[in-house]
Amino acid sequence: MARTFDKLNKTTPRIDAVERVTGQAQYTEDIYLPGMLFARILRSPLPHARVRSVDTSAAEALPGVRAILHSKNTDVVWSGGDQYGRRRLFAEEVRFVGEAVAVVAAVDRHTAEEAVRLIRVEYEELPAVLTIEDAVKEGAPKVHAEGNVDKQVLRADAGNIEEGFRQSDHVFEADFISKHHNNAQLERRVSLARWDGGQLTVWASTQGIHNCRRDIAQDLKLPLSRVRVICQFMGGGFGNKNQGYDFDLMAALLARETRRPVRVEMNRHEDFVAVHGRWATQQHYRIGYKNDGTITAIHLKAHSNMGAYLRSSGGLNGLPLYPVPNIKSEIYRVHTNTSCGANYRAPAGPQGAFGMESAVDEIAERIGMDPVEFRLKHTVKDRWNRLPLTSNGLPDCLRQGAEAFGWTEKRRQYAQQSGPVRRGVGMAIGYWNSSLGPSSAEVQLLPDGSVKVLVGVTDIGTGAKTTMGLIAAETLGVPLESIAVVYGDTDIAPYSPGESGSRTTGYTGMAVIEAAQNVRKQLLDAAAERLQQRREDLDVRDGKIVSKAEPGKTWNIAEVTGRNVDALVASVTTNPQETGKARIDFAAHFTEVEVNLETGKVRVMRYVAAHDSGTVINRLTAASQVKGGIAQGISMALREEMIWNRRTGIPLTDHYHGAKVAIHPEIPDLEVLFIENEDPLGPYGAKSVGEIPIVPSVAAIANAIYHAIGARMRELPITPDKVLMAVRNGAGKPGGQNVSQVAVLRQGVGGQEQG
Amino acid sequence: MARTFDKLNKTTPRIDAVERVTGQAQYTEDIYLPGMLFARILRSPLPHARVRSVDTSAAEALPGVRAILHSKNTDVVWSGGDQYGRRRLFAEEVRFVGEAVAVVAAVDRHTAEEAVRLIRVEYEELPAVLTIEDAVKEGAPKVHAEGNVDKQVLRADAGNIEEGFRQSDHVFEADFISKHHNNAQLERRVSLARWDGGQLTVWASTQGIHNCRRDIAQDLKLPLSRVRVICQFMGGGFGNKNQGYDFDLMAALLARETRRPVRVEMNRHEDFVAVHGRWATQQHYRIGYKNDGTITAIHLKAHSNMGAYLRSSGGLNGLPLYPVPNIKSEIYRVHTNTSCGANYRAPAGPQGAFGMESAVDEIAERIGMDPVEFRLKHTVKDRWNRLPLTSNGLPDCLRQGAEAFGWTEKRRQYAQQSGPVRRGVGMAIGYWNSSLGPSSAEVQLLPDGSVKVLVGVTDIGTGAKTTMGLIAAETLGVPLESIAVVYGDTDIAPYSPGESGSRTTGYTGMAVIEAAQNVRKQLLDAAAERLQQRREDLDVRDGKIVSKAEPGKTWNIAEVTGRNVDALVASVTTNPQETGKARIDFAAHFTEVEVNLETGKVRVMRYVAAHDSGTVINRLTAASQVKGGIAQGISMALREEMIWNRRTGIPLTDHYHGAKVAIHPEIPDLEVLFIENEDPLGPYGAKSVGEIPIVPSVAAIANAIYHAIGARMRELPITPDKVLMAVRNGAGKPGGQNVSQVAVLRQGVGGQEQG
Repeated sequence: MARTFDKLNKTTPRIDAVERVTGQAQYTEDIYLPGMLFARILRSPLPHARVRSVDTSAAEALPGVRAILHSKNTDVVWSGGDQYGRRRLFAEEVRFVGEAVAVVAAVDRHTAEEAVRLIRVEYEELPAVLTIEDAVKEGAPKVHAEGNVDKQVLRADAGNIEEGFRQSDHVFEADFISKHHNNAQLERRVSLARWDGGQLTVWASTQGIHNCRRDIAQDLKLPLSRVRVICQFMGGGFGNKNQGYDFDLMAALLARETRRPVRVEMNRHEDFVAVHGRWATQQHYRIGYKNDGTITAIHLKAHSNMGAYLRSSGGLNGLPLYPVPNIKSEIYRVHTNTSCGANYRAPAGPQGAFGMESAVDEIAERIGMDPVEFRLKHTVKDRWNRLPLTSNGLPDCLRQGAEAFGWTEKRRQYAQQSGPVRRGVGMAIGYWNSSLGPSSAEVQLLPDGSVKVLVGVTDIGTGAKTTMGLIAAETLGVPLESIAVVYGDTDIAPYSPGESGSRTTGYTGMAVIEAAQNVRKQLLDAAAERLQQRREDLDVRDGKIVSKAEPGKTWNIAEVTGRNVDALVASVTTNPQETGKARIDFAAHFTEVEVNLETGKVRVMRYVAAHDSGTVINRLTAASQVKGGIAQGISMALREEMIWNRRTGIPLTDHYHGAKVAIHPEIPDLEVLFIENEDPLGPYGAKSVGEIPIVPSVAAIANAIYHAIGARMRELPITPDKVLMAVRNGAGKPGGQNVSQVAVLRQGVGGQEQG
Repeated sequence: MARTFDKLNKTTPRIDAVERVTGQAQYTEDIYLPGMLFARILRSPLPHARVRSVDTSAAEALPGVRAILHSKNTDVVWSGGDQYGRRRLFAEEVRFVGEAVAVVAAVDRHTAEEAVRLIRVEYEELPAVLTIEDAVKEGAPKVHAEGNVDKQVLRADAGNIEEGFRQSDHVFEADFISKHHNNAQLERRVSLARWDGGQLTVWASTQGIHNCRRDIAQDLKLPLSRVRVICQFMGGGFGNKNQGYDFDLMAALLARETRRPVRVEMNRHEDFVAVHGRWATQQHYRIGYKNDGTITAIHLKAHSNMGAYLRSSGGLNGLPLYPVPNIKSEIYRVHTNTSCGANYRAPAGPQGAFGMESAVDEIAERIGMDPVEFRLKHTVKDRWNRLPLTSNGLPDCLRQGAEAFGWTEKRRQYAQQSGPVRRGVGMAIGYWNSSLGPSSAEVQLLPDGSVKVLVGVTDIGTGAKTTMGLIAAETLGVPLESIAVVYGDTDIAPYSPGESGSRTTGYTGMAVIEAAQNVRKQLLDAAAERLQQRREDLDVRDGKIVSKAEPGKTWNIAEVTGRNVDALVASVTTNPQETGKARIDFAAHFTEVEVNLETGKVRVMRYVAAHDSGTVINRLTAASQVKGGIAQGISMALREEMIWNRRTGIPLTDHYHGAKVAIHPEIPDLEVLFIENEDPLGPYGAKSVGEIPIVPSVAAIANAIYHAIGARMRELPITPDKVLMAVRNGAGKPGGQNVSQVAVLRQGVGGQEQG
């Protein structure tokens, strides 16, 4: 770090920590309004069917039922932000188990649930497809009339792929499979809507209040000025709360019809099936490489299972770390009669890195090169595609991470093992493209010298409120304690892009800096006049106006602002663009696993994550971000999978217990190492940190398992059954490439680890 | 009206009319938060006592009681804005029946009320004084140690009073008495406080969210940035909800102690005694005048009963309409052991005008001059004290009002009457000093072309939201429907001075104009660039960008703003000052009454109010303001009085029924006539209209009663007992100056009115 900071780059507790841990924080679920109705959604029990009729007579006859909406009386289209498509709020043709068929508003939850049970829906059952294999077959039942494979194939081509393979000495070829798994955020979905005349307020659980407002206004054909979205505390989303959702529209429509506030609630099962999880992928790699490891060609042919509706890109982000001249990448987006596959933290990241970083690990071994050395030699240097990098800390991540982990010694230590419990180490790298772009912020310096920072963030768990407060404190020269960060309400807070894509610090942070600089300037101008000082002699430090001419001479800010009736205000929209440059976060992860050859169980024993996120604004919350991402990666690597009954299309693991989301005992202490590499474009040199931590984690674990037992695990999650199958096929026995000793596996006898 | 407007000066329904009349509007009382506690206040049953001890053991033992605050455990000082003094939240020495002694927070209302009953307070009873007469006596018991008459006497002296009387031909001398009466707004007081960590939110019923925030922050020693005050709909205050109040502090303190939201509620009795009503006055006038009516000297010696604590000025505003060279005015502010006397609509207005306008009416009669003619001749012309008037519509109010009322014919018609039911006409004039000053506003033009106007008003019933919307619509050139006015929340809305003093249209209206002009300019600048037009050829009309070069050519605003991520924003603080000028509203009121000599009952039969408020922004709500003020004036003139038991100091009329607040059957159709006299300083030529309507009304009615029965009613309210006493003393008989026929009053026989 070249620069030193007053407030940044320290370990600062969250400004809302007390509310969060004492239960005072008001999450959307905590909000109850007088006279409020409760709404429950009736969902399709069939993976594919036509809704012939909806008979609500019995439900309507139930005392306390106030309104029922369904496909026969509601034709509102839900665009979900129009990013990838539009669909009716209640489809005439339902395409997955869990798709909304009707919604009931009633005076209490029990009545609403009972009414849902009393709705009689006549379905015409249609044939369904649940897997990529089935969906792409000739003559397969069609999820959509247009066919099961999206017409738009994601293609990336460079150079000449045939020529690239001709230049290679060897060709690596393998398949990798990742599965659908749910974002599984802690906070369930609640949407509460109230109309005040023509003015709609929606309390949503959203990662982007302004996105949510835009989507609701668009779908209900309301002016933006008539819609207010509030989300003050948020219990996680990881990408599946980015837009306005169908239940937001349901709440608004029911509230309008009943003239009462309406709260649509979803239970945990609905949360797992009715929104989306990470899309499943099948990735086929052909990689041509030379004897020295230089990759000359990559041909990736992949299929992404987007479920019933296209809600995200469906891409794979494994390739760009390696500057390969000849590339052919084709990704087919396949529809099935299952829950949607869409954004989950670093959407195309960990599944892409799982394929590519496993492949590279294998290539490195084939040419006898250390995996760290392979990456140091063959990954990006100063260009990203054709663009210059603003900064590149990847080599430092690799070197310092390996050093901190003790990579070389561990590799050597586990080279020779026997017994039923084996250890291994693995590593992988990852990146995130952390762009800069438009956002707004407002800074107010109140007459008493206290400060308000207004930002459109909701703080989805990242510590964004604290980050924005710190940036403002640093810029203004005041203590963090004098700043109140105001957020999470479109009527209060100016535009923020939504807390996704690792954008908050970069986008909104830049706006906070500019607004704070503007207010600081206003203050110093006023101070010069009020205090009869030369403007250039004045500065703001530690919440005081200080004289640079007479050291020790200070004034309280309120001496300047105290007579103002209102705040000194700066409300700005900034839109920095890194034109012609690539601003990329990098990370290198190192992990040690223990594999029990008898039970198939894998335990992560140690984890070192080295990250280049530019300047770290708050060391505490940045490290928390990395740890959270790794924990999710461990869970993705070893545990989570959404499984649908292949006959009925009914999800079987649509809840925490079934999804086996990793909990604390599964996660070791995670060591986080920041390679602080000040970025010339970001706020105070920051890049970003939210998305990237999950990216290399899955591959690092798979590579470590390989190191431990000599078997490449090419299908996620790497559950005990798959490990045991690998053992049955020879893993942990001679022939496994890095298992040089014969290990006799005996049930019930613990093996001896060897140094 | 010289100018014509697109949106102003029309009859526009309130933008929140539907919510208000359908019960959807959320008043503070409508807000319930989960886990909220209910608080009730224990009040002193004695007019003057020392609180020796407070025993809360029985109350605390009651299940459900969560916290009790009183003078022995709470020493917070309530400044109420520091305008006129500070006092402890719970006094050690209570000074009126109804003063707060303790407050209890409990899980429900009944428990809180029961707990209040279980608190045992040991009082040391102290001697009390209840009236001005008793309080100013030598050796009277002292309300405060400093004595019962405030040391600061309100004095206004001009010229030489002795010389003035020497120049006069006659001297008029009389006493006038006005009584304490309560503001009696419909909405009871509720204050609801919640802490989110160190952040306090108070839902108050307040006329000034920013004043309330300032006061709470000051009294609780919190930075302004940590306090949020919300009041979205307000059910009236008329001056007794201007500041932060003791119950706001109680709610905040209880919420902090219990870590739960706390709602302090007051019942109607508490609302009448514990806040304040209009101060009672005793006014002694000596007025020297010449044979032509020229007033050469006024000596006013008055006493204002401020009750137990000084909460307002206690002045009298009757004199300034008459440019008298020699004045001696001395107003003594007296403390008694009664509820506070303080601000109620035009605080020093109607009681001052009652005295002065009655006196002038009497003088006019003595010199044989028509009262209208007297005012036309002797009131202000183009100067106000020494300052030039910005505009003066008073002569037009007098002439056009008299014309519309049929003043001359009515005067003649009722000159000769007999029988038990008499009619009379009376008139009076009034003014309000409608200053301009600091306020803020923010205007946002959203990407879809809809508009948000952010203002710190709560709309206390005046239609201020609609007024601000109209001003923005006029300035921007867009329809009112495309504007959402956002208000009533210190976290959302910039500073407004509080809706009192007739300031909103003038202060905040000017800020709205400047912000809207700024946004309009931003829009046109952007339009010129985006649409490739010359800037000077573009304008905004009816919500479209129009070409002045090519008539008929228009563009939607969203064509220019649609790609913006955030609104075009202007957030301004304006502080126009009418330096060296006086900007005064004027009014002349004309009324006809019917007096029943047998029952003493007075009925107002007709009422014409002519007002000079400059440009009328919204004819509908401006007329409603005038009508509301007159209704309150009729009630003040004929009905309302707070009566305390002279032995116990217990208020006897502390509720609607007892206060006899006038209801619809008592109020005739009120005719409102605006003399539209564009003011050169105000927003679009507006002055103001909120305070003034009550000012002349009381005197006009008293003068009409005199005209009907020939008796000067010099004590308010003019209730049937006082009329009957006047009749017993000869009213309605020969000798009453304008009753020229002998009328024999016979019980049970209706009299014949004569033309």
